[in-house]
Amino acid sequence: MDDFKLDWERIARTGTAEAVLCDPKSPSQVGAIVAHAQSLGRRLLLTRLDRDKLDRLDVAIRQALDYDEVSRTAILGPLPAPRGPARVAIVCGGTSDVAVAGEAARTLAFAGEASSRFVDVGVAGLWRLMEHLDDIRAHRVVIAIAGMEGAIFSVLAGLVPSAVIAVPTSVGYGVAAGGQAALHAALASCASGLAVVNIDNGFGAAHVALRMLGTHVTLSEPTSRAQA
Amino acid sequence: MDDFKLDWERIARTGTAEAVLCDPKSPSQVGAIVAHAQSLGRRLLLTRLDRDKLDRLDVAIRQALDYDEVSRTAILGPLPAPRGPARVAIVCGGTSDVAVAGEAARTLAFAGEASSRFVDVGVAGLWRLMEHLDDIRAHRVVIAIAGMEGAIFSVLAGLVPSAVIAVPTSVGYGVAAGGQAALHAALASCASGLAVVNIDNGFGAAHVALRMLGTHVTLSEPTSRAQA
Amino acid sequence: MDDFKLDWERIARTGTAEAVLCDPKSPSQVGAIVAHAQSLGRRLLLTRLDRDKLDRLDVAIRQALDYDEVSRTAILGPLPAPRGPARVAIVCGGTSDVAVAGEAARTLAFAGEASSRFVDVGVAGLWRLMEHLDDIRAHRVVIAIAGMEGAIFSVLAGLVPSAVIAVPTSVGYGVAAGGQAALHAALASCASGLAVVNIDNGFGAAHVALRMLGTHVTLSEPTSRAQA
Amino acid sequence: MDDFKLDWERIARTGTAEAVLCDPKSPSQVGAIVAHAQSLGRRLLLTRLDRDKLDRLDVAIRQALDYDEVSRTAILGPLPAPRGPARVAIVCGGTSDVAVAGEAARTLAFAGEASSRFVDVGVAGLWRLMEHLDDIRAHRVVIAIAGMEGAIFSVLAGLVPSAVIAVPTSVGYGVAAGGQAALHAALASCASGLAVVNIDNGFGAAHVALRMLGTHVTLSEPTSRAQA
Amino acid sequence: MDDFKLDWERIARTGTAEAVLCDPKSPSQVGAIVAHAQSLGRRLLLTRLDRDKLDRLDVAIRQALDYDEVSRTAILGPLPAPRGPARVAIVCGGTSDVAVAGEAARTLAFAGEASSRFVDVGVAGLWRLMEHLDDIRAHRVVIAIAGMEGAIFSVLAGLVPSAVIAVPTSVGYGVAAGGQAALHAALASCASGLAVVNIDNGFGAAHVALRMLGTHVTLSEPTSRAQA
Amino acid sequence: MDDFKLDWERIARTGTAEAVLCDPKSPSQVGAIVAHAQSLGRRLLLTRLDRDKLDRLDVAIRQALDYDEVSRTAILGPLPAPRGPARVAIVCGGTSDVAVAGEAARTLAFAGEASSRFVDVGVAGLWRLMEHLDDIRAHRVVIAIAGMEGAIFSVLAGLVPSAVIAVPTSVGYGVAAGGQAALHAALASCASGLAVVNIDNGFGAAHVALRMLGTHVTLSEPTSRAQA
Amino acid sequence: MDDFKLDWERIARTGTAEAVLCDPKSPSQVGAIVAHAQSLGRRLLLTRLDRDKLDRLDVAIRQALDYDEVSRTAILGPLPAPRGPARVAIVCGGTSDVAVAGEAARTLAFAGEASSRFVDVGVAGLWRLMEHLDDIRAHRVVIAIAGMEGAIFSVLAGLVPSAVIAVPTSVGYGVAAGGQAALHAALASCASGLAVVNIDNGFGAAHVALRMLGTHVTLSEPTSRAQA
Amino acid sequence: MDDFKLDWERIARTGTAEAVLCDPKSPSQVGAIVAHAQSLGRRLLLTRLDRDKLDRLDVAIRQALDYDEVSRTAILGPLPAPRGPARVAIVCGGTSDVAVAGEAARTLAFAGEASSRFVDVGVAGLWRLMEHLDDIRAHRVVIAIAGMEGAIFSVLAGLVPSAVIAVPTSVGYGVAAGGQAALHAALASCASGLAVVNIDNGFGAAHVALRMLGTHVTLSEPTSRAQA
Repeated sequence: MDDFKLDWERIARTGTAEAVLCDPKSPSQVGAIVAHAQSLGRRLLLTRLDRDKLDRLDVAIRQALDYDEVSRTAILGPLPAPRGPARVAIVCGGTSDVAVAGEAARTLAFAGEASSRFVDVGVAGLWRLMEHLDDIRAHRVVIAIAGMEGAIFSVLAGLVPSAVIAVPTSVGYGVAAGGQAALHAALASCASGLAVVNIDNGFGAAHVALRMLGTHVTLSEPTSRAQA
Repeated sequence: MDDFKLDWERIARTGTAEAVLCDPKSPSQVGAIVAHAQSLGRRLLLTRLDRDKLDRLDVAIRQALDYDEVSRTAILGPLPAPRGPARVAIVCGGTSDVAVAGEAARTLAFAGEASSRFVDVGVAGLWRLMEHLDDIRAHRVVIAIAGMEGAIFSVLAGLVPSAVIAVPTSVGYGVAAGGQAALHAALASCASGLAVVNIDNGFGAAHVALRMLGTHVTLSEPTSRAQA
Repeated sequence: MDDFKLDWERIARTGTAEAVLCDPKSPSQVGAIVAHAQSLGRRLLLTRLDRDKLDRLDVAIRQALDYDEVSRTAILGPLPAPRGPARVAIVCGGTSDVAVAGEAARTLAFAGEASSRFVDVGVAGLWRLMEHLDDIRAHRVVIAIAGMEGAIFSVLAGLVPSAVIAVPTSVGYGVAAGGQAALHAALASCASGLAVVNIDNGFGAAHVALRMLGTHVTLSEPTSRAQA
Repeated sequence: MDDFKLDWERIARTGTAEAVLCDPKSPSQVGAIVAHAQSLGRRLLLTRLDRDKLDRLDVAIRQALDYDEVSRTAILGPLPAPRGPARVAIVCGGTSDVAVAGEAARTLAFAGEASSRFVDVGVAGLWRLMEHLDDIRAHRVVIAIAGMEGAIFSVLAGLVPSAVIAVPTSVGYGVAAGGQAALHAALASCASGLAVVNIDNGFGAAHVALRMLGTHVTLSEPTSRAQA
Repeated sequence: MDDFKLDWERIARTGTAEAVLCDPKSPSQVGAIVAHAQSLGRRLLLTRLDRDKLDRLDVAIRQALDYDEVSRTAILGPLPAPRGPARVAIVCGGTSDVAVAGEAARTLAFAGEASSRFVDVGVAGLWRLMEHLDDIRAHRVVIAIAGMEGAIFSVLAGLVPSAVIAVPTSVGYGVAAGGQAALHAALASCASGLAVVNIDNGFGAAHVALRMLGTHVTLSEPTSRAQA
Repeated sequence: MDDFKLDWERIARTGTAEAVLCDPKSPSQVGAIVAHAQSLGRRLLLTRLDRDKLDRLDVAIRQALDYDEVSRTAILGPLPAPRGPARVAIVCGGTSDVAVAGEAARTLAFAGEASSRFVDVGVAGLWRLMEHLDDIRAHRVVIAIAGMEGAIFSVLAGLVPSAVIAVPTSVGYGVAAGGQAALHAALASCASGLAVVNIDNGFGAAHVALRMLGTHVTLSEPTSRAQA
Repeated sequence: MDDFKLDWERIARTGTAEAVLCDPKSPSQVGAIVAHAQSLGRRLLLTRLDRDKLDRLDVAIRQALDYDEVSRTAILGPLPAPRGPARVAIVCGGTSDVAVAGEAARTLAFAGEASSRFVDVGVAGLWRLMEHLDDIRAHRVVIAIAGMEGAIFSVLAGLVPSAVIAVPTSVGYGVAAGGQAALHAALASCASGLAVVNIDNGFGAAHVALRMLGTHVTLSEPTSRAQA
Repeated sequence: MDDFKLDWERIARTGTAEAVLCDPKSPSQVGAIVAHAQSLGRRLLLTRLDRDKLDRLDVAIRQALDYDEVSRTAILGPLPAPRGPARVAIVCGGTSDVAVAGEAARTLAFAGEASSRFVDVGVAGLWRLMEHLDDIRAHRVVIAIAGMEGAIFSVLAGLVPSAVIAVPTSVGYGVAAGGQAALHAALASCASGLAVVNIDNGFGAAHVALRMLGTHVTLSEPTSRAQA
């Protein structure tokens, strides 16, 4: 029996596709999984893939991947064209949250959903959020990403009509180290309409958004790519 | 300045209405808030209202409330007729989770959303969940409620296409006391498409569902009731 | 040696006076301390004095005390006239924080400082805070009191020029139970100019405010009272 | 007095043998222990031996060891032939749990017990577990290994008749980091028949299995090896 | 749909039977479950049933139960005769652990397994354990129950050949309050052959023992009782 | 086998005697233990015995006990005359620590050691400690008792030549609730010469002091008492 | 949209200026922010900038910064001349706290406030603090910085008339690791007049001091520098 | 003012001498402190000095130090001859505890106290401890050092007449990581006569022992060394 068993049937059951969480896997495990997907002609999303681990993959595998260093994601196979204008707003409290925002945006793009990004609009300077509020409200789903004390989660959920998916990040020090303070702020929020995913889990937030929107992923590579 | 300031404008901003969390409030504070809403002819939802506190309210206030002891909720003003068949499935791991399930169902009903309830279908006896799976999958949103180890969150999210809103409950003892084990299980789930609210927060889960569905609450009492 | 030893010299060293934290003391200990202060003709502030414990004090002691049930404070001796208009704004996130707000206000009043109170202005409905912002900004010190996720601490500190003293409260449930979530939100705030005291410590926040303002307490009872 | 004192008598008392936990020991301590066992002609199991530490052992010591990098175990002396077909099933939730699974399997093999391995059968894709269920049920003991939210522990214990020994792993991030979420899920399980060992403790799980099976280890090297 | 759904099929799958955890259930829920089992002629075990809750059950229900106050367990239907001499030793660190020991013993008895009890043999006075060691070693499984620092778990596991199932108890104060210190001691033990269940979970320990022994429960009431 | 097994041999091994921790024991268990000691003519110390539990003991048992309500201790049999002047100083940070101080003092008295008590000398008013410093320094052992932030532990250990035994107390609220803040302050102290016992464990601190002093307890009742 | 959005308006609202927390930012993000400020002719404070990250900035950026390695701060633009003699005392418990003290002092200097530094005056040797007490008391604000058990916070607050801003540091091991013990000691202090900022947050403490003093920062570079 | 201020007066007050905790100090800070002590002709003990940091000291400083790599301690100036036979027994649970044992032994030796060492006598193999018990009992003080579950603390304290000073170590993984499990086991012990110091604090344990023994350190270098 191999070390892995991909759940290709997940799409049929849930509409969303399994991704490969690379962080706890060895380079040889990651390589074998990608090679297996290639052999089946399937598209695949990889998350938490460090540059170092990428560099230890076989060159053929590495070259087949579209790698994005900021978000530490890699995509095997073509990205589908977006289904239309962005329906998901990704709102970051600070500059340091862009890695998690990137993971969410790439996961959405892998499923063919465009997204809009609003960065460094934390509530310590409330006007930064307010000047984008109408834009943000125009989206069907809001993903809010913040570390430290996560006050933006409550402020946003009190201002927009859509569900807000909070992603606490591990950005911070002292009592904020590891993201627990932001996580608890999101869960304890006085503003309702807010749901929370694990710390730094941009991938998970994107999947909740996809299910809300009813987006259905396709993993088979389209013919056009085989020709490319 | 009074002790309270209701946020009637919240509906205009977010589509969902503020509720009165009675647990940390004194009977006189709760009574004053209800009287104020009455004077404005507004509907109002009260949560975490113990029988003891209810009994300490003025009789006129108490009689104006539709109280449900299991869910510890009270409603001022008429319940709207449901908009149609249930779009939200409320799935409980165990018998002891019905109080939280009730809070969610009443919050949905207050907004005119019907819901279906599936109780005691925890994964220790997996067939109990499986025999209801097709029914559950027919709903647009799933609210999953469980204490102890919360394994049902992952199993459900791997089997249904809708977003799953997990409500960990404080049911349990030892390491499960207070609901932290179930909360962490929901957040750490390997199954994606799962978002989490605070422990025992049935109200919050219902509001996330309402926003996902785009349901818009109305608080003004309809004319028909004045006639009743 | 007695069970207590009051630090009357504290005012000479620090300008602020010791108070009697009644919560962990027996009725007989509280009674003995008050009697001792009476015998010296000194004013005294008692905090966390429950109605039950008050009722178990000797009647002579009890009648000498000006008791406030909401804040659970009692004052022996006369309140000084306020030194002038309120220099301290006390801002509460929710209705349930008024007990802690009362402890802070009474501590300030004991020292002759007036305060203004702004209640239930949490950021889930941001306009409630905004409509009082100019008023709040007119005070030299702001004490902010909130439980749950404590998002108001960051929003306030980003909007006012004075130092903000945050008092997390134990109001909340689930991850907010006991006040840890609000405490961590205050400590981890991205907004600077914010300092924090222990959970529910309205007394402590007032003392920080008094030291900032340079207010010096007097404990000897004025002649006029002896005549009363 | 030396730095170590091996408990060779443990087998007589308990049927199971002490192993050398190399993680907190220096290379010279590990080397001295192995040399001592060699001098007595005893077999020995070493756990948590990193490649780096292995490489710092004397070459003679190193060459006497049968090292397995994935499980970080080394064995001094010959492996006994298995007593018969596998009586222990080792079931892993994910690909990343194979290191801990390896430690368990090698510990069993050291005692002459064969085991079967089922990898990446986590409940997010329940069919993966179900297709192996009959196989798993055919074993006398089940060792279940999982990180993240550990939902597989409850599902398995509800489906098999044998005792299930849960090994939470430190695989995960956010609230799952370090393995606490999986540990608590195992302990709080609604399914009975489940017992738990420390996080990542594949060795310990194997020893519980050995005691259940009544397997008795022999440490003296058989004559045949001396001839080899 | 009712509030409960008993998993009668569990025995067929796992050999062990579901019990009713009464602690988080209302008297009416407990009563309904017992009545349902009665109507099916099934035996049933109830755990964590306080005297107060028992007294609030309908008299007919209450009289049908064999209640044991120390262990807070109740049994509906006849106890089977033991299958033979005790194969399980229940070893308690202190006098205060007898409630948990009783829950384990009653759970075993419900399944027809006799057990031996060794009480107050904590390691602060090691001779108390030593004088019973030969007796304890004669059992096929050992359940060890202790609160405070739980040192007995390690000592026992180092002295007996059987698997030791540790049950930490919530007995203790300070850092031992709630049982976390004893739980961690059991999990972190240097002695192998030790597996752990949740704090105070005597029921769970008994079920692990039953699965180790291969005991199969029968829930149908024997004919002889109907005649009684 | 009974529910208890007193370790009378402990004195021979360690010089100090077992006490009965009454908190987790039922009145009938406490009563049986006292009766057993009476039947052997042995002296006995009981700790954490609430007035309520005392009142539920048989009257004969209750009257045989010398009960002290503040410290919640009871003593069976005569107190020995002190061996000489006080060699142990018991220093309390606040008025609320006298219960724990009483438990320590009574434990010492049971062993024939006198002690001196210094109450409410916390470092917020440093002069209160300083005016007693020479007195405190004259003792061979110092037991320091404090809740809240426990700053007195470090200050004392930096000023006296004897070992300081710190007893954190559960007095406090917010982050000090339960005594963890004081416990950590004692353990983390920059001042050396400080050793710590469990929260509220006045009994344990006294036993450490007794062992330091080499005091040897005698439990047999002297002849003179039998005559009384 | 860029990765950052500086809140230049903060000074108008609050009197204090945003700083750039470099720790969680990439070198390219830090570089872009500095370049942007340069292009606007604004002064800027950078905190938690490691030597390694500094060395990875473009040389032009690096040379524009006044870097201090001990405090890990960098300043873009000229330091204003101090407004007068030091009004802030910075008091460190130990040698290891000088990095945090440096961050506070540099933040004050950036705003034109001088400060006095008192190092290694922890209470284990109380005389070291006492010999500087008159000096410390002469300042309008005291910033106290300590790790380990943080006993100095309470001692200081009991001896000076000014507000004391406590900065717990992450210096320590065992229960003091990460600074939680010192944080809790500061929050739980029996001495009033003490307010607390996050662990290691020297910048935050300085900002609280600036707001207390009413100091108003100016960010535009003076003409003289453009000429330099 | 310098970065450090040595508390040479500590010996006069407490009999024990300050040591330099090198871990959080920079090489230049360590070097300056040693040079200062040298200039005064004083002896000095340094703890937690890594080989790396040692190598970064000036060669003159480095050569003046007697460095021991296992215990990471360095001593400036001559070691006094022991006052007599060992009065302190240092007992280690496992091989991995020898670093902490070394720190304790070197601290004792610096004060002229000999000690005996008993290593790898953990209770998983109880006979290892028992065969040394008479030897251990012959010492006036016992320092017990253990990580993991720390069961040896209770067993030892129940068997010896002297006070036992427990030093939990950070050796362990899973729930034992960092030493919290061992710390709590020591604090929660059912065996009395046990006092605890911070995790890994061998230095602190030695100082408690020195104060118990009344040993008085001398720091001035004896004439004989100046001649050497």
